[in-house]
Amino acid sequence: MPRVITAFSNPLIKRARSLRDKRHRRAESAFLAEGLRILTEAREAGFLPETLFHAADSAQHPLVVALAQATEAAGGEVIETNADILSKLSGKDNPGAVVGIFAEFATGLAKLDRSAADLWLVAERLRDPGNLGTILRTADAVGAGGLILIDECVDPFSVEAVRASMGALFTVPIAQAPWEEFLPWLRSGPGQLVALSLDTDLDYQTPRYEAPTFLLTGNEAQGLPDAYADECDLRVKMPMLGKADSLNAAVATAVMAYEVRNQRRHG
Amino acid sequence: MPRVITAFSNPLIKRARSLRDKRHRRAESAFLAEGLRILTEAREAGFLPETLFHAADSAQHPLVVALAQATEAAGGEVIETNADILSKLSGKDNPGAVVGIFAEFATGLAKLDRSAADLWLVAERLRDPGNLGTILRTADAVGAGGLILIDECVDPFSVEAVRASMGALFTVPIAQAPWEEFLPWLRSGPGQLVALSLDTDLDYQTPRYEAPTFLLTGNEAQGLPDAYADECDLRVKMPMLGKADSLNAAVATAVMAYEVRNQRRHG
Repeated sequence: MPRVITAFSNPLIKRARSLRDKRHRRAESAFLAEGLRILTEAREAGFLPETLFHAADSAQHPLVVALAQATEAAGGEVIETNADILSKLSGKDNPGAVVGIFAEFATGLAKLDRSAADLWLVAERLRDPGNLGTILRTADAVGAGGLILIDECVDPFSVEAVRASMGALFTVPIAQAPWEEFLPWLRSGPGQLVALSLDTDLDYQTPRYEAPTFLLTGNEAQGLPDAYADECDLRVKMPMLGKADSLNAAVATAVMAYEVRNQRRHG
Repeated sequence: MPRVITAFSNPLIKRARSLRDKRHRRAESAFLAEGLRILTEAREAGFLPETLFHAADSAQHPLVVALAQATEAAGGEVIETNADILSKLSGKDNPGAVVGIFAEFATGLAKLDRSAADLWLVAERLRDPGNLGTILRTADAVGAGGLILIDECVDPFSVEAVRASMGALFTVPIAQAPWEEFLPWLRSGPGQLVALSLDTDLDYQTPRYEAPTFLLTGNEAQGLPDAYADECDLRVKMPMLGKADSLNAAVATAVMAYEVRNQRRHG
């Protein structure tokens, strides 16, 4: 039988709600994920919540049942609650059927195995959680080995980033490192570092990329610092025919990642 | 001399603030855009605000001066205000230096000239304003003739969509139409309608696309209705190597649009 909580003042609800703030996430090494699709994706990837909240009226949904059983079997707690509280936890007027508290993963470079993939995505000072989640989804789709976040990026465990990732947070390895740590790590093994840049004439379809390729995207507003771009093996740009000479960072990353993937799959 | 308003109770401030709601935008045929970059993009594209608000401390910025002069020369009003009020208008803690009230554009299909471009983007029931703005930016970058919004999409004049478009709202023609109106319009002239779909085996790099190409992207969560997909000349999909079998709608649109553009530029 699940425990039933319907009071917002309950300490467990308050704790869950507090994880919407980065400070609390860091202090507790935990984060929130919500929605049946995302939590099911997590379960299939081997990640179960420490605490699973579900609405009373969705207790019979087969995916909720599967999540609740797996959570309890793994020693987690299942809490039955109501839509009001789920809404407060998720910050959405129309909350999903479930919200989970998950333990944060380690995000050191050491956990990455560069021989595991021929393509890696790297983002520097990414500010928008939607862009981060979207890039994680792209990483999943193109078969990238993972996403490496350089310097001060938005928190990948933020509610908005997890939501935008549609579950890819659980399937795509993530590392976080300052540039001074990333660059020696990269140069300690094989790897071509390719910068997406406006400051080049090299068309992104000209080079034959070498595996493993590390695609580096800079900050949404400022792009890459010159000093970082100088360290890259290649700087490439997409043709831009319009007036703005800019693309959304997640879009540019995806167009570039598919170019690398297409080169490889066509031999 | 600009008029100075520093009271939030001022009717003009209240009116501007009300344009954050779709209902008021429709009633007044006006919308808000903010930030020096976006308003300068608008000015260069020939769009000036009916009312320009700027912070007192940015009055000497060359781009603010240029905007204020052009606005007054076109018969618009320039209001000097403070950061608090700009923040209330923009809904951001860190507002840009300027906010403008612009007249909405007509968005009928009749205003589109299909012979003007070899590529058009079409989105059906797009729900996320960030995706809409991002797709407008992509349309600008790939030289698309415009963006056609089918059925009930998020409002392209919403503050969030305008912001995400980074000014492309002013440079990319937009039309809105129900499917029953779009399809006869499309079939009344040349045009290949290509659906992005998960429900096909046709790789997006296999066909040689015919100009003008109309790229159709479906709703973020549900994709295209079958009945709409059935009317398309082609259904194509991108390879997805991961576990999720999904891409963000704006990302999929961009990857696809660059494929069409790349085919054309390489002859």
